[in-house]
Amino acid sequence: MSKKNQLGVTPLSEDVSAWYNEIVFKAELADRGPAKGTMVIRPYGYTIWELLQAQLDQRFKDTGHVNAYFPLFIPESYLHREADHVEGFSPELAVVTHAGGKELDEPLVVRPTSETVIGEMYSRWITSYRDLPVLINAWNNVVRWELRPRIFLRTTEFLWQEGHTAHADQQEAMDETMQMLGVYAEFARTVAAIPMIEGEKTPGERFAGAVRTFTIEGMMRDGKALQSGTSHYLGTNFAQAFDITYTDVNNEVQHVHTTSWGMSTRMIGAVILAHGDDQGLVLPPRLAPIQVVMVPIGRDEDGVAAAAKADELAAELKAAGVRVHVDHRDASPGFKFSDWELKGVPLRVELGPRDLEAGHVVVAHRVGEVDDKGRAVKQQIPFADFVSGVPALLDAYHDMLVERAETFRDENTSVVDNWDAFEAQVATGFAVAFHCGRPECEDDIKSATKATPRCIPLEGEAAEGVCIRCDNPSAYGKRIIFGRAY
Amino acid sequence: MSKKNQLGVTPLSEDVSAWYNEIVFKAELADRGPAKGTMVIRPYGYTIWELLQAQLDQRFKDTGHVNAYFPLFIPESYLHREADHVEGFSPELAVVTHAGGKELDEPLVVRPTSETVIGEMYSRWITSYRDLPVLINAWNNVVRWELRPRIFLRTTEFLWQEGHTAHADQQEAMDETMQMLGVYAEFARTVAAIPMIEGEKTPGERFAGAVRTFTIEGMMRDGKALQSGTSHYLGTNFAQAFDITYTDVNNEVQHVHTTSWGMSTRMIGAVILAHGDDQGLVLPPRLAPIQVVMVPIGRDEDGVAAAAKADELAAELKAAGVRVHVDHRDASPGFKFSDWELKGVPLRVELGPRDLEAGHVVVAHRVGEVDDKGRAVKQQIPFADFVSGVPALLDAYHDMLVERAETFRDENTSVVDNWDAFEAQVATGFAVAFHCGRPECEDDIKSATKATPRCIPLEGEAAEGVCIRCDNPSAYGKRIIFGRAY
Repeated sequence: MSKKNQLGVTPLSEDVSAWYNEIVFKAELADRGPAKGTMVIRPYGYTIWELLQAQLDQRFKDTGHVNAYFPLFIPESYLHREADHVEGFSPELAVVTHAGGKELDEPLVVRPTSETVIGEMYSRWITSYRDLPVLINAWNNVVRWELRPRIFLRTTEFLWQEGHTAHADQQEAMDETMQMLGVYAEFARTVAAIPMIEGEKTPGERFAGAVRTFTIEGMMRDGKALQSGTSHYLGTNFAQAFDITYTDVNNEVQHVHTTSWGMSTRMIGAVILAHGDDQGLVLPPRLAPIQVVMVPIGRDEDGVAAAAKADELAAELKAAGVRVHVDHRDASPGFKFSDWELKGVPLRVELGPRDLEAGHVVVAHRVGEVDDKGRAVKQQIPFADFVSGVPALLDAYHDMLVERAETFRDENTSVVDNWDAFEAQVATGFAVAFHCGRPECEDDIKSATKATPRCIPLEGEAAEGVCIRCDNPSAYGKRIIFGRAY
Repeated sequence: MSKKNQLGVTPLSEDVSAWYNEIVFKAELADRGPAKGTMVIRPYGYTIWELLQAQLDQRFKDTGHVNAYFPLFIPESYLHREADHVEGFSPELAVVTHAGGKELDEPLVVRPTSETVIGEMYSRWITSYRDLPVLINAWNNVVRWELRPRIFLRTTEFLWQEGHTAHADQQEAMDETMQMLGVYAEFARTVAAIPMIEGEKTPGERFAGAVRTFTIEGMMRDGKALQSGTSHYLGTNFAQAFDITYTDVNNEVQHVHTTSWGMSTRMIGAVILAHGDDQGLVLPPRLAPIQVVMVPIGRDEDGVAAAAKADELAAELKAAGVRVHVDHRDASPGFKFSDWELKGVPLRVELGPRDLEAGHVVVAHRVGEVDDKGRAVKQQIPFADFVSGVPALLDAYHDMLVERAETFRDENTSVVDNWDAFEAQVATGFAVAFHCGRPECEDDIKSATKATPRCIPLEGEAAEGVCIRCDNPSAYGKRIIFGRAY
């Protein structure tokens, strides 16, 4: 039986899985939908998604992309045109067989991803080199039937963006693939406060239909990996399947080279698992629906005056672009503190009659220094400095979260050169090891340890050795990263 | 055979239907998707949607609403819980019967609207009067099987927002219903430059499951009506079907009163049909992806200097928040002018070597004064006044579009008191007439004239008379509005 804290939450340190589910529900991020494996994203969780969308979308636009919308329904036959693609996605498809009161002549697949339908449209739109590159992104919902659903991490339906670009040649398409991987990594660090390892997937972990798949991998607080975004170079696979050709400057017909790249509501799961603690959510300020919560303290006349001052300061903060909330509920400060800790609000501001008299607020960070009794060290800030000081406090808090996550990851990542060390390492973190590159050896490692190759890191040093499992010569020209994964 | 202009577009004045389809495709707003009745919204069209979303969403937030996301798939049995609702939507449903390689125990309906699944969630979330009101909106895609699809106006899948609120009593829910109707009407006028008639639907035109349905109706340039947004008071119909109850202040259990309200990608169709002309799209500035297009003119050195000046002014405009594009294509000015007219850009700015020397730009409005040869009257604006002057030009252009649409509507709306006048009037516009209120009489009018009751206008004067069709005493206490509709 797990030991729950006063809010009824199992400590993360005891049972991550129970902790995760309880936090998701109690912080009102999401709920289970009636149909198996579906989720309802509640306003608090959806606001995180809106903040994520806005900041990621701006990066797409800054790199020359435009948004569009493609249909939810795809004729089943389209999926079959690219052999690897249909093999990869068939087991996960939801299929519409009846519509408008009749059985359909051809079943419609609910999109699991849109390479096929977009391939069809690009083949209609692209004729000349003048039409290239095509740089389109789409924000939408996709469906992949999940046997073991988990809110945000693996749901039957999820929200995401899928970028789809078409280029004249391989070089340009590869440049785009790497550019978008970089955008994801920068976004994850700058906005979600999660340092990511950028790397390439081994052939066994590639996207169905891709020539090369790149990934950003974050370490969660239990040492597991979470794949948080992928960018694929699709070569001419879909161009051939859907006849996407253009006439080049020499008047010769060529296939385009395409890419696709996606990030989803899974990223909210990454935020929960990369930063959370026993008290609940820890939200990075740039994704926090509420960045500052103000808790006026006191009863009677004094309390009213403190509450009025809190409202006044909150209005100034709001005008300065800070997402602020004043908690006027009829409840004890202790209850409110725990509640906002559960919800992961970065800064809590207390303001009671004595503070009012002293002309300052008391600021507590959701994560920060604690005294020798384990209580958060609070900071007194004069009214005059408070509003102008909050943005810097939030930025510093963001930087602290990045650094904390990076330190945690580095402490839980080791280069290993023998099997015992490997087994021990992947139980709690990432192992950096040589591998032979054979899919059957990957499978063998997975059944022995549950660990999988997360990526061939872009940054690893060139090196050769023998496989951590089978002693065959190493592939990839460098060590690769293994870990258990969500 | 229709007479097409130099861009291959049938004049609106000759064949609205052909004109509409050609404009949608040639202006690259949208394309047909592979699955029957689906549409692909291309970047130019999707940018209109993004601008609409941002400005409508802000109004929802300003009135206290928050966004959330509910699942695409709804268990079929849910639809059956509200009798009118299932009767209304059954013929239009798309049904998933297989998923994950297996036949499902219970088929899943692809949401045609989300009252049912949201009803289920609200019944879980709401327990006390303290939980009310619940003010949630969702942006998503819905599917309604269409036999005669038409891009933006009636597609199998469309994008929309659906607001769903729950309240303690009827008064509060009715206030919300009317507030959101007002938000739609104000948005349509202020952003889309379309003056709307606000009114209530007759019982035969109500939303399936609603107690009262309110609508905004716009007049298109062929005199037809387009229902552009609806707001429903649902009473306790869904609260009873899904057991959404709360404990009131007296500790008694009560059903909540709910509302729902929606506006969709159909609104893009409204913009096309309310403002367009023989030359193509006419976009209102607040929804125009490009508000100002700059066309540098001239070749050789002089042309280069003019192009550089155009880029310089465009950069200043962009910094001032104006959506501007400089057309550097290697094509004739005449071709470019027609192309940007087709695409409906509000202001075209020409800048050639002589203008550069004179220190001014030449501004042409997409819709504006013409000289006695039918050519647009152009305006010379000195460089020094141009950038700061554009926002006011755009605002004035917006106001002109509203006024033009309002004048057109008023000129094509008549009070009629005999059947011959009614028949003539609904052939080209709106007829304001008495009606008995009997559904069979509505049906009779529809088969005789294709006209339907658009709404009982909120603003109409109290009056009594005899039915325009059957001479029975009038219902509703006022005249109502009839028209043919999209």
